[in-house]
Amino acid sequence: MSEVKTRAERIAVKVRRKQRLVRVALGEEKADLVLKNADYINVFSNEVCHGDIAVANGLVVGMGEYSGETEIDVTGKIVAPGFIDAHIHLESSLVSPSQFARAVIPHGTTTVITDPHEIANVCGTAGIDYMMSASDGLPLDVHFMLPSCVPATASEESGAVLSWRDINAYFDHPRVLGLAEMMNYPGVIGGDRATIEKIVVSQAHHKKIDGHAPGLSGRELSAYTSAGVYSDHECDTFDNAIEKLRTGQFIMIRDGTAAQNLEALMPLLTPQYAHRCMFSTDDKHPYDLLHKGHIDYIVRKAIRLGADPILTIKVASHYAARYFLLNNKGAIAPGYLADFVVLDNLRDVNVERVFKRGAQVYDGGEVALEEPVVDPDILAGVTDTFHLPALTVEKLALGDAPLLGMIPGQIVTENLGRASRVDAAKDILKLAVCERHHATGHVASCYVKGYGLRRGAVAASIAHDSHNIIACGADDADIVCAVNRLREIGGGLCVAENGRIVEELPLPVAGLFTDRPLTEVNDRLEACKRAAYERGVSEGVDPFMTMSFMSLPVIPTLRLTTRGVLDVSTQTLI
Amino acid sequence: MSEVKTRAERIAVKVRRKQRLVRVALGEEKADLVLKNADYINVFSNEVCHGDIAVANGLVVGMGEYSGETEIDVTGKIVAPGFIDAHIHLESSLVSPSQFARAVIPHGTTTVITDPHEIANVCGTAGIDYMMSASDGLPLDVHFMLPSCVPATASEESGAVLSWRDINAYFDHPRVLGLAEMMNYPGVIGGDRATIEKIVVSQAHHKKIDGHAPGLSGRELSAYTSAGVYSDHECDTFDNAIEKLRTGQFIMIRDGTAAQNLEALMPLLTPQYAHRCMFSTDDKHPYDLLHKGHIDYIVRKAIRLGADPILTIKVASHYAARYFLLNNKGAIAPGYLADFVVLDNLRDVNVERVFKRGAQVYDGGEVALEEPVVDPDILAGVTDTFHLPALTVEKLALGDAPLLGMIPGQIVTENLGRASRVDAAKDILKLAVCERHHATGHVASCYVKGYGLRRGAVAASIAHDSHNIIACGADDADIVCAVNRLREIGGGLCVAENGRIVEELPLPVAGLFTDRPLTEVNDRLEACKRAAYERGVSEGVDPFMTMSFMSLPVIPTLRLTTRGVLDVSTQTLI
Repeated sequence: MSEVKTRAERIAVKVRRKQRLVRVALGEEKADLVLKNADYINVFSNEVCHGDIAVANGLVVGMGEYSGETEIDVTGKIVAPGFIDAHIHLESSLVSPSQFARAVIPHGTTTVITDPHEIANVCGTAGIDYMMSASDGLPLDVHFMLPSCVPATASEESGAVLSWRDINAYFDHPRVLGLAEMMNYPGVIGGDRATIEKIVVSQAHHKKIDGHAPGLSGRELSAYTSAGVYSDHECDTFDNAIEKLRTGQFIMIRDGTAAQNLEALMPLLTPQYAHRCMFSTDDKHPYDLLHKGHIDYIVRKAIRLGADPILTIKVASHYAARYFLLNNKGAIAPGYLADFVVLDNLRDVNVERVFKRGAQVYDGGEVALEEPVVDPDILAGVTDTFHLPALTVEKLALGDAPLLGMIPGQIVTENLGRASRVDAAKDILKLAVCERHHATGHVASCYVKGYGLRRGAVAASIAHDSHNIIACGADDADIVCAVNRLREIGGGLCVAENGRIVEELPLPVAGLFTDRPLTEVNDRLEACKRAAYERGVSEGVDPFMTMSFMSLPVIPTLRLTTRGVLDVSTQTLI
Repeated sequence: MSEVKTRAERIAVKVRRKQRLVRVALGEEKADLVLKNADYINVFSNEVCHGDIAVANGLVVGMGEYSGETEIDVTGKIVAPGFIDAHIHLESSLVSPSQFARAVIPHGTTTVITDPHEIANVCGTAGIDYMMSASDGLPLDVHFMLPSCVPATASEESGAVLSWRDINAYFDHPRVLGLAEMMNYPGVIGGDRATIEKIVVSQAHHKKIDGHAPGLSGRELSAYTSAGVYSDHECDTFDNAIEKLRTGQFIMIRDGTAAQNLEALMPLLTPQYAHRCMFSTDDKHPYDLLHKGHIDYIVRKAIRLGADPILTIKVASHYAARYFLLNNKGAIAPGYLADFVVLDNLRDVNVERVFKRGAQVYDGGEVALEEPVVDPDILAGVTDTFHLPALTVEKLALGDAPLLGMIPGQIVTENLGRASRVDAAKDILKLAVCERHHATGHVASCYVKGYGLRRGAVAASIAHDSHNIIACGADDADIVCAVNRLREIGGGLCVAENGRIVEELPLPVAGLFTDRPLTEVNDRLEACKRAAYERGVSEGVDPFMTMSFMSLPVIPTLRLTTRGVLDVSTQTLI
């Protein structure tokens, strides 16, 4: 039979599938799977209902009394719809989509909506292509929002520039749900044509547009929303969340590694507002994923803080599905995907089993999954991403230069004036950024205070948002050693001292992540961090995460770009 | 410039429109319209908010302080989103879509979802074509659900038969939202291929499928829902509504002319359930429209019965919009259509002004609208629909035959055995049905008791669902006179006596409705009804509406089809 089916053939197949659903629902035929004696969350009537849940062809067909080929007794347990992360950059986990899936499925996550913003800033469309292939067919549904801001700002040297024409080609894919966080809100409210074009194109495909506009308010918020931005995940106070909600934006309550807003936004988790809310982690690092969990962690925390459990689970599943128009997700009812989480109870919210499209994918052990096959040409697009000349000590020569002040526990910086030389004893170190996409040879450096390193150097190819190589060191030769090592291995994190690499975590995919298992990545990452702390890095500073924001030219006050030190408030190089 | 725009041209136009929205939202440019000092329903935060509402290009751009080219002070009034009728057969109003619009806009209706089931049973796709053209560009958005059951049953001689291929051509039209009430639930749960095909095709277009399954429950309801039926408007008790709601169906709370379910379903209008509900009239006759209202009438009634006003208005607008994925309707917020109802207050719910896409279309006076232009070939498809030979007294000859018992106030009938002749004194009359679509010459007759007519005859070309000519008379010659009159004028209602027409209401479009104004139609209809009552029709019987159901072969017990008397319980001709 030909690969291309006629419409009539496709309809015939679908009709037969539906005929089977009907027979199983009627009890004329055995279900594939029945969860016996389930107490399940009914998101429509806002209550816990009781009955067997019957599944056929990966879909729920009925609740009541059923028998099935496989029957699992869940007496005393709570069955909830699978959890949904409404906004995450998968790259932040430092692992590939399939390793991410292995890590989060045991936490009850069955769907994530990812914005491949990081890899697109490195590889452009090749990065999106890879992420889509590498997440295909997983027992975790990975949906995409298309990066709206590549590069994130005009002052960055990113690996690619994406116009509406570049992203337009993706909209017809069923896993593509819209345009990702429109960080360039000044562009939107300034009426910038190229920015608004992307919104127009996404709307023309009847897709969503996510927002990202910390603190935006009043008429500017109205303008931004009028332009077609439907959500926000940057709310850190109830007041700015409620203003956005009233203005019509959906609120993604973010609680991840880089930012935790749940506590501040708890008043949203009430019947008056929760219907416009969902959960998001945005960035989720290996340690957090392994030791805290994912959306289940947010659910637990919310319930512990006093939220109604049924309402919280709706926020974690149903409302996200409704926002993204994922028609067959977020509920346990006939016709919905059999994506379930079996919980011990509604107080502790421990995930005991997970079902994806009716298949049990977690029951306390390892998650078994078939590795997606990525076309070699698509893989090649994300594995040869370091194009820069070897760094030399001469390129780091620096006399009198600005002194950037890191603040422990924060990603904003201070302008500490100027310095004239490295003095590790006084915590004055060298910070360097090396352009690594287009072999421009651009290297910029300045002084930094607050990092605390006493000897050696720390380097990383994760440096928001363009992911050039960033390094901080007490010694130029060690900076050179660390940067050149990352160049050699195609990206990652490392710590160098006395001209040799002490610890490293290779991140060969775009210099951002690896396909190794999360536990292994976490071990190496922790080893790298330990090596940095042993060499003096201050306690309140994350040796890699804090450093990774030092070149992001949208956060005050000073940032080091590949072209030099930028004063963010004036957007001028100083 | 060519009629066919390039994609870049279309994007350029849309970007400029958005740039204007942004400027107006920012206050840099005057709004087209500002409702000053509005107390408006915020459907997101479930509260009444206060501020000016600014409109540009037909869309809301901001709430706050604004000035506009036109400013209307609404101090002390309540502004709500325009009302939505989630399911109506426009034909039931006996007027064309534009006359219907004139009638309902003063009641705050800005959107209706219609199922052109009646006209499609007469004219097939030509009927749908006409309804779409005749409702184009009105200041009332008329969306369509495509008739799923034409003919309604196999025992009917309808004007057309619609397969999935016939309806498939309509799905790409932006006003088409899905497949209309799937009345053939036995077909769905019986796995009937042609029935399920229509569901499959609608889903393939990512469209909704409405249900119609009175009393369906348990596994059969699960089967029906599994097959992909998302809503129901046939709930007449809280118990069957709540079962459907728990099973995942949306509930359309119906309160129209033929059925009033609001009182029974009032417990749905609570925060626990209302989010899955909307309002529907299903059938709405001229008198009711003129003297009671439309969705505003249901809102008033619900509030009077104790429902929360904000929640009730959400059911009347927001939730219907969400169900039908009408992304820019059902809320007052930036980016939403400026479809507003200005109400005196939330107790009396009197509509004082109505705005459609930012234009005031009602302020207490007449509704001005531009009549849609219907292509003459499309119009021809619905105006020559009477194909039958002239009726003769000989065709009505009847000896011993079944006696059908009408029950006042109901549409079910009784089997009263048999009769051998008309005897008006004993209320034994003749009922006749004449096939009128395909000139088959099929005429069937039987006896009927309960109608009460003492002399003359009553005839109509509205006879569910095939709309053949139905007549009831004390005298064969008068039946012949009445039927032939309808044949001559191309359909309508009439009363005849002594061989002449006493009163008539011509319904030249498909024999179902007219393009005359609603008040005129109502006057003539009331005159026809008076003429029938004067001739003895029983008080509990509506001379036309009750008669119109006597040939609908799905309601127990006996029905007269064009082929003879059908026992509905056994589906056999007797």
